[in-house]
Amino acid sequence: MKETVVVVYEKPEIYDPIFIEGLPGIGLVGKLAAEHLIQELNAKKFAELYSPHFMHQVLIKKDSTVDLMKNEFYYWKSPDEEHRDLIIITGDTQVPPTDSYGHFEVVGKMLDFVEQFGTREIITMGGYQVPELQGEPKVLASFTDLETKERYKQILGDMVVFREDEGGAIVGAAGLLLGIGKLRGMRGACFLGESLGYIVDAKAAKSVLTVVAKVLNLEIDMTALEERAKETEEILRKVQEMQRAMFEQQLPQPSHEEEDRGYL
Amino acid sequence: MKETVVVVYEKPEIYDPIFIEGLPGIGLVGKLAAEHLIQELNAKKFAELYSPHFMHQVLIKKDSTVDLMKNEFYYWKSPDEEHRDLIIITGDTQVPPTDSYGHFEVVGKMLDFVEQFGTREIITMGGYQVPELQGEPKVLASFTDLETKERYKQILGDMVVFREDEGGAIVGAAGLLLGIGKLRGMRGACFLGESLGYIVDAKAAKSVLTVVAKVLNLEIDMTALEERAKETEEILRKVQEMQRAMFEQQLPQPSHEEEDRGYL
Amino acid sequence: MKETVVVVYEKPEIYDPIFIEGLPGIGLVGKLAAEHLIQELNAKKFAELYSPHFMHQVLIKKDSTVDLMKNEFYYWKSPDEEHRDLIIITGDTQVPPTDSYGHFEVVGKMLDFVEQFGTREIITMGGYQVPELQGEPKVLASFTDLETKERYKQILGDMVVFREDEGGAIVGAAGLLLGIGKLRGMRGACFLGESLGYIVDAKAAKSVLTVVAKVLNLEIDMTALEERAKETEEILRKVQEMQRAMFEQQLPQPSHEEEDRGYL
Amino acid sequence: MKETVVVVYEKPEIYDPIFIEGLPGIGLVGKLAAEHLIQELNAKKFAELYSPHFMHQVLIKKDSTVDLMKNEFYYWKSPDEEHRDLIIITGDTQVPPTDSYGHFEVVGKMLDFVEQFGTREIITMGGYQVPELQGEPKVLASFTDLETKERYKQILGDMVVFREDEGGAIVGAAGLLLGIGKLRGMRGACFLGESLGYIVDAKAAKSVLTVVAKVLNLEIDMTALEERAKETEEILRKVQEMQRAMFEQQLPQPSHEEEDRGYL
Repeated sequence: MKETVVVVYEKPEIYDPIFIEGLPGIGLVGKLAAEHLIQELNAKKFAELYSPHFMHQVLIKKDSTVDLMKNEFYYWKSPDEEHRDLIIITGDTQVPPTDSYGHFEVVGKMLDFVEQFGTREIITMGGYQVPELQGEPKVLASFTDLETKERYKQILGDMVVFREDEGGAIVGAAGLLLGIGKLRGMRGACFLGESLGYIVDAKAAKSVLTVVAKVLNLEIDMTALEERAKETEEILRKVQEMQRAMFEQQLPQPSHEEEDRGYL
Repeated sequence: MKETVVVVYEKPEIYDPIFIEGLPGIGLVGKLAAEHLIQELNAKKFAELYSPHFMHQVLIKKDSTVDLMKNEFYYWKSPDEEHRDLIIITGDTQVPPTDSYGHFEVVGKMLDFVEQFGTREIITMGGYQVPELQGEPKVLASFTDLETKERYKQILGDMVVFREDEGGAIVGAAGLLLGIGKLRGMRGACFLGESLGYIVDAKAAKSVLTVVAKVLNLEIDMTALEERAKETEEILRKVQEMQRAMFEQQLPQPSHEEEDRGYL
Repeated sequence: MKETVVVVYEKPEIYDPIFIEGLPGIGLVGKLAAEHLIQELNAKKFAELYSPHFMHQVLIKKDSTVDLMKNEFYYWKSPDEEHRDLIIITGDTQVPPTDSYGHFEVVGKMLDFVEQFGTREIITMGGYQVPELQGEPKVLASFTDLETKERYKQILGDMVVFREDEGGAIVGAAGLLLGIGKLRGMRGACFLGESLGYIVDAKAAKSVLTVVAKVLNLEIDMTALEERAKETEEILRKVQEMQRAMFEQQLPQPSHEEEDRGYL
Repeated sequence: MKETVVVVYEKPEIYDPIFIEGLPGIGLVGKLAAEHLIQELNAKKFAELYSPHFMHQVLIKKDSTVDLMKNEFYYWKSPDEEHRDLIIITGDTQVPPTDSYGHFEVVGKMLDFVEQFGTREIITMGGYQVPELQGEPKVLASFTDLETKERYKQILGDMVVFREDEGGAIVGAAGLLLGIGKLRGMRGACFLGESLGYIVDAKAAKSVLTVVAKVLNLEIDMTALEERAKETEEILRKVQEMQRAMFEQQLPQPSHEEEDRGYL
């Protein structure tokens, strides 16, 4: 495999779809949001993306079968004129951070693929790492251009924070899809939910998906995500208690030794 | 050398061979198993694989000659209808872990080559790192698909553990050959022997090869491997005694300084 | 995006321009100097360079829009026969230091582009890291060849230090543009201002730009740069005071923990 | 520059030359030996090799001019039938150790180039790192094949140590030229002089060059090398004295802090 490849199982008849990205990242926010959307819409998988820039390994499934690491494309045909067709991508992994060239190559191939279906609009989802959190996670929004920003502002109002942190960066597909898409004449928005980063953050995923559902004018039942969100809150509260206890007793922090894994 | 290349010395007349992989990895389990199989079957070397993704060095042999790092293909023609023709690969090295792209490129070239001989089935062998071991090393099995899993289950029964560790990974050729092979319509199985990882583990190699011999319906004399296995047990026991002694006397652990090797 | 690409917005009619480089580096000296020159000359942006060898991220602007990391080409048409046309490049980033191949590829594409406008002469600007500084930062000069050196000597006299540190290195675009340009028959000079390296060094930028202005026979109003230079001096003085205070009181140095940033 | 390139200044009329390599490595042994040979034979430079796999920097010369890092080809026409024509390569650098692919690419281009002149025989020179040294540095020899080994044995007898360290490695051009050359039907030998590694080791260079001179049936005046060898002995003796003194006084070892160089 010399280049990233998309294996196509079906060519859906979709028109001017919005391409929605939710790949693994901080707090797995984007992935959780995308998976929940796919589930609620009953979106259908129609293609898989494999890449020689992904980790050189296969993943094991509960039934003893193995697969290369991959991303998966799902589509949803809108039922009426009030809604847009959708292509949603999620998956096992992004390219590792040491391979910038690989990131550009993979995102380029994603865009090549969705362009075939007339995609001109992109929404990317992910987490934004914060040191602490009060209340519901805010959703930080950024855009390819001012016209798109205004359009989304009309719909979202103050549901999101319009980013002004000049020089801040969005690393990986959530950023590159907009940056490279822009050079190809596409438009888009990126929604990142505030997250402490070290757990599977369903709360942040819910915040982001609520915003995206509003944009898409969809009613999404958040129950399953809410249940995961409650588990997340529980874990968060326990972690905070444990840290407070240790501070008060001035116990030494648990150390993490860097395991030197032998290479298989 | 811009791409991985296979130098072919002979084109054996083999039919629908099973491609068996045993390259260096944890405990050198796969390599030991493959080398022993080659020895016992008197398999014949017919091709060599070189790659610009291998380490940029040559290895010295006892007779003062040098060679690039390589993998070697051997073939065995089955003597009757009850057995399958085999292609076995072993060698000096895999691609280093920092070069994912190289791993995909090399495995792709391996499959290109064995496909020329009609290969549609793959068995990969290696080690699985465990922190401790009681009794004989178990063999962990995984497969490209459920049909293949059933087929092997019929033959092996409970000789192996059918993996259920969802999300676990098999890194390197042992995994990639199945993952990429699958995309090319091939089928296969991976057998990994439990190993502590830091020594040449002939015990684990014997466990894995016993399973593979059963699959191939071959009688393999394990004597040479058993002798190496006894040496391995000896070394293991000495290491454990030494560690127990140090613990009891609370001697400081031996330190290993990171030697800064000058670059040649 | 498989290769570095230049997006061209306008094809200016310029003749035998001097190509001036000021990209991010030590103390941001080159970038500050280039940006100030662009501002004072009111040079016009006419092209952008994007590369899959840049960091795989987009940068956020104050208005919530995002862009890939890029370099920008500006041009200035000289008003008379006494001055040369100019192409100036500055931007967000250079290729990260782990990707030598990327550096060569990007600089090659820069030269391909400016060659189209008849460029045969290059001036590069940057910082030179020193452990301490007294008085004004000196400017260290080096050249593609002796003839060019003489030509610049006539103009600059002892305004610069002609480097004699055999075996010293100039890393990145400031060096490569001359090294690769030389192989293409181009000529050029590199001017590096002494800098302590860890701050935005407008003093060094001013020293370098003063030299370049002399070479180009341009009157450049340094006021804005001088204001930034005064701020720089202030910060420098505060840092030195703080370090002296700590030394006298033998306070423990502030520790910097290596934050392990989660990957998005 | 997308590939390694050889810039040719002259096409010498040489016949069946021996290609001799002496590039930077341990103790700079190979480079010193090659430079001395070039000097004594008055060999003429006829080509330069540049590579995008070399460090992305230029080097400064005493006259203020700069050059990309490069390797240089020299030729020597033998004066009579008793001697062979020679191509000698030396230079600033090899490819950094993190880029195996680059090493293969560069050595491939070197061989492509010297093949044009009918080269079928290769001698590589370098250092072999040892922890301590008594007397003159031994020269360790290895070969592409047994026939070549025998041929050299006839000439050298016990002047060299015929390596038997199975599994030992020769990293970089000194090894790859033989390994890849072998696949192209070339023959060759590698001579490495024992060296402590951390200084410019003219003693080891002299040992290696003495062997190579014998092979080539050349009288090489070693005076200049011997003078450098005496300096090397002096430095060695001082270092050993200093280490003995510290041991006796149990002074703490000097520490070396890893300087974190800012990126230019």
